[in-house]
Amino acid sequence: MNANLQIGPQGKLMHLLTTEGLPAEIVLHILDTARSFVSVAEREVKKVPLLRGKAIFNLFFEPSTRTRTTFEIAAKRLSADVVNLNIATSSQTKGERLLDTVANLTAMHADMFIVRHSQSGAAHLIARNVGPEIHVINAGDGRHAHPTQALLDMFTIRHYKGEFRNLRVAIVGDVLHSRVARSEIHALTTLGVPEVRVIGPRTLLPTQVENLGVQVFHDMGAGLKNVDVVMMLRLQQERMSGALLPSAAEFFKSYGLTPDKLALARPDAIVMHPGPLNRGVEIDSAVADGRQSVILPQVTFGIAVRMAVMGILAGN
Amino acid sequence: MNANLQIGPQGKLMHLLTTEGLPAEIVLHILDTARSFVSVAEREVKKVPLLRGKAIFNLFFEPSTRTRTTFEIAAKRLSADVVNLNIATSSQTKGERLLDTVANLTAMHADMFIVRHSQSGAAHLIARNVGPEIHVINAGDGRHAHPTQALLDMFTIRHYKGEFRNLRVAIVGDVLHSRVARSEIHALTTLGVPEVRVIGPRTLLPTQVENLGVQVFHDMGAGLKNVDVVMMLRLQQERMSGALLPSAAEFFKSYGLTPDKLALARPDAIVMHPGPLNRGVEIDSAVADGRQSVILPQVTFGIAVRMAVMGILAGN
Amino acid sequence: MNANLQIGPQGKLMHLLTTEGLPAEIVLHILDTARSFVSVAEREVKKVPLLRGKAIFNLFFEPSTRTRTTFEIAAKRLSADVVNLNIATSSQTKGERLLDTVANLTAMHADMFIVRHSQSGAAHLIARNVGPEIHVINAGDGRHAHPTQALLDMFTIRHYKGEFRNLRVAIVGDVLHSRVARSEIHALTTLGVPEVRVIGPRTLLPTQVENLGVQVFHDMGAGLKNVDVVMMLRLQQERMSGALLPSAAEFFKSYGLTPDKLALARPDAIVMHPGPLNRGVEIDSAVADGRQSVILPQVTFGIAVRMAVMGILAGN
Repeated sequence: MNANLQIGPQGKLMHLLTTEGLPAEIVLHILDTARSFVSVAEREVKKVPLLRGKAIFNLFFEPSTRTRTTFEIAAKRLSADVVNLNIATSSQTKGERLLDTVANLTAMHADMFIVRHSQSGAAHLIARNVGPEIHVINAGDGRHAHPTQALLDMFTIRHYKGEFRNLRVAIVGDVLHSRVARSEIHALTTLGVPEVRVIGPRTLLPTQVENLGVQVFHDMGAGLKNVDVVMMLRLQQERMSGALLPSAAEFFKSYGLTPDKLALARPDAIVMHPGPLNRGVEIDSAVADGRQSVILPQVTFGIAVRMAVMGILAGN
Repeated sequence: MNANLQIGPQGKLMHLLTTEGLPAEIVLHILDTARSFVSVAEREVKKVPLLRGKAIFNLFFEPSTRTRTTFEIAAKRLSADVVNLNIATSSQTKGERLLDTVANLTAMHADMFIVRHSQSGAAHLIARNVGPEIHVINAGDGRHAHPTQALLDMFTIRHYKGEFRNLRVAIVGDVLHSRVARSEIHALTTLGVPEVRVIGPRTLLPTQVENLGVQVFHDMGAGLKNVDVVMMLRLQQERMSGALLPSAAEFFKSYGLTPDKLALARPDAIVMHPGPLNRGVEIDSAVADGRQSVILPQVTFGIAVRMAVMGILAGN
Repeated sequence: MNANLQIGPQGKLMHLLTTEGLPAEIVLHILDTARSFVSVAEREVKKVPLLRGKAIFNLFFEPSTRTRTTFEIAAKRLSADVVNLNIATSSQTKGERLLDTVANLTAMHADMFIVRHSQSGAAHLIARNVGPEIHVINAGDGRHAHPTQALLDMFTIRHYKGEFRNLRVAIVGDVLHSRVARSEIHALTTLGVPEVRVIGPRTLLPTQVENLGVQVFHDMGAGLKNVDVVMMLRLQQERMSGALLPSAAEFFKSYGLTPDKLALARPDAIVMHPGPLNRGVEIDSAVADGRQSVILPQVTFGIAVRMAVMGILAGN
């Protein structure tokens, strides 16, 4: 997939499809812009008129109330008109092709598509087929990418740690099936994090994951040692038994983040999770709700980061 | 369930969870405020800017287009941003706990949650776990409470009868399974209605319902005699056959409100129903659409009462 | 069904239920008004305050994301408040009658209902039962009518052809089951198109369709000859096999619009389709995406036409 598709002729962001190949200056521009939006949510009237009269379509081919809600809230705080399309239950059932759906919405003078799809590359495909006045945000495509999640994670890390260039970050769990992990790894390396580790059982790590510039650990003891940031991944229900994993309990024993295991990280390490949590599977409640957890601030910052991405795209 | 949870330190309404223990002055304040909102719906532009920029979440864990719509309309007339979350089909299916869902939405800077849930106490649970800047409205929890329905019923009674202190009110039907009945009884007694009657078959009345301060009747003839207000309850489909009731037809014969039975009430008695109607089961169409029916005005007043509750909560 | 129901005492449009019997001056007034709305969608802020504070309900008893979206977008561009009700999954399941649902929404001070229903006459039934302050738009009822689709088609034809009085128009495909075809035929004849043809297999044309003032063809060669406009119809999935048709492939061979067949029409003929497309069934991709296709402009004009209808109704 052509990452450059998202960068326009003058180096401007036209779409947000992936953090892979996304220049550091654009990432930092998004994070800087998001900072100014954090305060909007704390005002009495949580709205700015930046996207008034713009039509933003939530195109969710895969259901996700949670992610859809964050984009809907972000768009409404920018005063945009939001239309939610849960496509699984509608025109797709009438056999309309993805690109015909998009062409139709484009003909309605859509300004932006937020796309979630179970197939990798869906958002790219759409971006490649719309005119220059339309912007596409990838809200998760298959196992490929989830760039706004990675960007809000970067915002969170910068908020708590200030700098990226002296950090040790561990990503823990089912890296193999995780678009979040892939997008995080690209963003972290782009921002100059010197040491990115992935920790998980062999069956849940991609082959040759080292090629992404990460260190591989199969043991939490070694992997968490002295890290500044622990980024937990969600274990999908369907992985919890069967060929890849013996059981959820077994996984928790080896890779679930407990206070004991967290004690191996630096004392000021922060704990992150993209949600929704599987308490007692990948994370212990004592950690999820504990002093070092920044899981809820991630959600708060997520709105600001999505507002920033939408605002920047609409301005370009 | 702690009813006082809904009253703040200075006696202000922080949440609306139940009419049980809700002070008369707060009930009357809501009814007075609602009166001013009735006229908003009759304007050319049916909007006031009271809740502009506020984020209101319809958290419906149990589907109800009807109730959800009344809250959505009320919130939009107050210029709020409304996000509808039908949770049955989303993060709950991913195994996220109720409180994690709420914590996430709180982190998005939600201002208000409208909660409908099949389990009694769900709205209380949420109210107990949110910060002081967030307000919870119970839109129906299990068999427990449906306070906005009871408040709009009180508004309707006051509109047509003026005073509460000289009324005879009968509540008819399946009191046992009805959160509406429970909330109505509490509101009526709080407002000083001297005689509240419940009428229904033994199998559909709670044991010791007398302890709520009502008179119990099993016969419509005796129960409706000289009442000023007849509040019908909806008979749930699933009760219409089986252990509790012989059949819908049998129920209608004994407890369905027909013109004949209504003639036993005072000639100026009003007939109420929370909807949706089961015509020919608990109510005859001649009564539902008749001169004494105030069923549609209840709906109209329901919007104004919900606007009032939202407006008061947001101001406290 | 009484077509005059939609025209008020002073000849004003009160509802839009069907193009049958809709006077030419009203059709032309809608088309003229729509022209002014086309430019709204091209502005930076795609909004006019014409319907601010109005409550518009999308009452979709039959799912259609596509049509619902066009009305939602149109209403939001007019600054209305839109509430989407997918009725199949809600109060209908509780056994509420259609008219009770409508009476309830009316009591909430609805201003307009957009109705899609699988039964012919549903929108008429609603229009007959609402007060004069409420307007009903038929967004498709059974096999009966889909007037906004026909009006946007007329807008499209006028846009490309200028005049109606010298045109040959062919409607191709499953006329029998098509509410779109019925509404198009009425609109075309009202606007004075001298020659309207229908083309299709005997099994997919209504008996005595000639009575509608059209010429009947069973062969594309003869039917398309020298036409100015080709209006394709969608072939419903359920017709593609079984009693009425041998197979989709067989249908395509005889009635699918290919470049070869289109060459029989006038060289400047335009090709229309109401969407969603069955590529390779009723239309070849080379035609759908070709030089003569105006399928996507139809979608664009559809928003403007729906804005015009809503604006005119709200003003009457």
